Amino acid sequence: MIDVERKRRVVKVMKQLHLDAFICGTASDILFMTGYWPVIGPSVAIFTREGDIDLVLPEDEVGLAAATSEAVLTPYKPSELDKLVKPIEALSGPLSGATARLGLSKASIGMQADQGMQPASYASSNVFRCSLLALVQSLLPQVKVVASDDAIEEMKSRKTPTELAQMRNATEIACAAFEIARDAIHEGAREADVAAALHAAFQCSGEAAAVQRSYGFFFCMSGPNSASASAAYARTRQRTIQHGDLVMIHANTCADGYWTDITRTYTAGAPDARQEAMRIAITEARGAALAAVRPRVAARDVDVAARSVMAAHGFGEAFKHSTGHGVGFAAVNGNALPRIHPRSPDVLDVGMTFNIEPAAYFDGYGGMRHCDVVTVTDDGMHVLTEF
Amino acid sequence: MIDVERKRRVVKVMKQLHLDAFICGTASDILFMTGYWPVIGPSVAIFTREGDIDLVLPEDEVGLAAATSEAVLTPYKPSELDKLVKPIEALSGPLSGATARLGLSKASIGMQADQGMQPASYASSNVFRCSLLALVQSLLPQVKVVASDDAIEEMKSRKTPTELAQMRNATEIACAAFEIARDAIHEGAREADVAAALHAAFQCSGEAAAVQRSYGFFFCMSGPNSASASAAYARTRQRTIQHGDLVMIHANTCADGYWTDITRTYTAGAPDARQEAMRIAITEARGAALAAVRPRVAARDVDVAARSVMAAHGFGEAFKHSTGHGVGFAAVNGNALPRIHPRSPDVLDVGMTFNIEPAAYFDGYGGMRHCDVVTVTDDGMHVLTEF
Repeated sequence: MIDVERKRRVVKVMKQLHLDAFICGTASDILFMTGYWPVIGPSVAIFTREGDIDLVLPEDEVGLAAATSEAVLTPYKPSELDKLVKPIEALSGPLSGATARLGLSKASIGMQADQGMQPASYASSNVFRCSLLALVQSLLPQVKVVASDDAIEEMKSRKTPTELAQMRNATEIACAAFEIARDAIHEGAREADVAAALHAAFQCSGEAAAVQRSYGFFFCMSGPNSASASAAYARTRQRTIQHGDLVMIHANTCADGYWTDITRTYTAGAPDARQEAMRIAITEARGAALAAVRPRVAARDVDVAARSVMAAHGFGEAFKHSTGHGVGFAAVNGNALPRIHPRSPDVLDVGMTFNIEPAAYFDGYGGMRHCDVVTVTDDGMHVLTEF
Repeated sequence: MIDVERKRRVVKVMKQLHLDAFICGTASDILFMTGYWPVIGPSVAIFTREGDIDLVLPEDEVGLAAATSEAVLTPYKPSELDKLVKPIEALSGPLSGATARLGLSKASIGMQADQGMQPASYASSNVFRCSLLALVQSLLPQVKVVASDDAIEEMKSRKTPTELAQMRNATEIACAAFEIARDAIHEGAREADVAAALHAAFQCSGEAAAVQRSYGFFFCMSGPNSASASAAYARTRQRTIQHGDLVMIHANTCADGYWTDITRTYTAGAPDARQEAMRIAITEARGAALAAVRPRVAARDVDVAARSVMAAHGFGEAFKHSTGHGVGFAAVNGNALPRIHPRSPDVLDVGMTFNIEPAAYFDGYGGMRHCDVVTVTDDGMHVLTEF
């Protein structure tokens, strides 16, 4: 489908920046520009100021791209049996043809060059490193390349209604898997058993049939292992769950390139007083953060809202990370806007999607986190992961 | 553990190329240089001609790195609550310190700049794009940066005994999951059910406890969907398996950064004459390819060995891709050496690891593929995925 609103916004930014086109080669940026979520191949999206969108991609991926994008598709063969070339060499001719057709030989072109996060698009994903920039400069020696990392990140932070519908699909598929969590978690089960059961429920969900590609990661961390979930990553082990453990389930799943970031924490058996105190604090902190979310609010005020509740309950030190970050075109990207962080300069706006993840971690004992994905509405916010 | 042989080989290549150091920032290259498989963070490996190995990494990942690498660890904080910086800014100081300590201010430094494949290290992985090269050039204005993509890819193709032991771990964990495949595949099951069952068997395998991080992707493609497995990627859907279907199971799994690439094809019910003919051809083609593998053989001769058998059985057109490619530091990288391809200039050598994947695909009907991972030994080869 054509996302008319996305096209309008990108063209508007291009005019503000005096650019003639954007050229992107990272999977999540190709999705943002064209609606297509690449699998593995070296694909390049070209988006012009006239609103023309061209996608140069390996011919293997044409079927999936045609089902999800209205971009003009320029397929090429990255590998053939009768010759052996590097993908960047195979890409060169088709990219040259596409830029010529679009009249970009003397254009100002916005590209990305900075560090970023690439969500897992498959078991392996193409990375261009410096080669896409070098190729554009060699094919089009008269173009002016303008570093546009910040402008693209900024645009990605505000979802259009079409993109929000995709986010709703992605979060619904993931939330459904959590329905079996309570049954899967019990004394004697291993973390790997629980994670596998959630993953299976996710993969077999009928709702996944609504999208082209649905996959993801479910993690289970129990007892002391749940304390290490304060780190930037989650990790399932073979530990056997003990009676009284905190058991944290963390999911990062993808539906056609839109990512979710969801955490719930359970107990093996009835919660004890300490766990109840943690739950009360986190629930109140979540409520305070959500109540603060609306357009034109400083993102740091949302962090403060959660953080001050945690501190009032004696969990200030235990809440070791920021309250949230942008979620959508990636699950794990601490620098995705808006950053719900004590020092954030970001301001909330309609359509922004991010997580709210108050938590408390105690080394050697365990951790509890509740992570939702929310979106800013005209007069407040909507929780995409309400359960 | 220290991989003395790896160190010896890298130093030797550095001397041949008149380099003082390699600096790498892509996860699989960091693994190759240091033994550590990064999770998500912007990490940088420095390997000097004197054999010093330094790993600059986010402090969250220090525990995992210390368990798998003997590199000198230089941790940094990519995010803090009392300031908000970009990861590349946070990395700058520690990287500068490490290069100064190693005396690299006027060095010749090998770096990668070309297109490559990045295996999924987590739900999201860092990509530097051009920023690592730019950072090194700005921190060390007197260094000479030498493009070393080909030299590094060449080194990665020949595994040391230590790396081969890791490959054996990875393939053993993955092969164990296939034990349940016959029971999981039956008329009426959906592809997603089968893939989830294999994934669960994999994740819950006791063998996974031998490594720090074990995860991966299992795909099931049945009937006509199995024909589309000729493409560069696999895809599980919700299709219900019918009696008489070909059912292809494809796995790409990872154990601490070492990847597997395994495919087996089953039938729902007893195979019919057409399926038997396909199986006989593929089994013979596999045998011919394996018989051709030994040191100093041209990789293209291995492809020819398989391809001519397929053609003799009338499946020449149906065998649509090359016979194999390097597997180990990534599962999916058609350009990993050696390329078992009709036009390959590569020559087999001891320690190389690659797949052998004869196959036949018929649009609208189905596909059959048998994909093993093998390694070249002193006098022939060893199949790492024998079952």
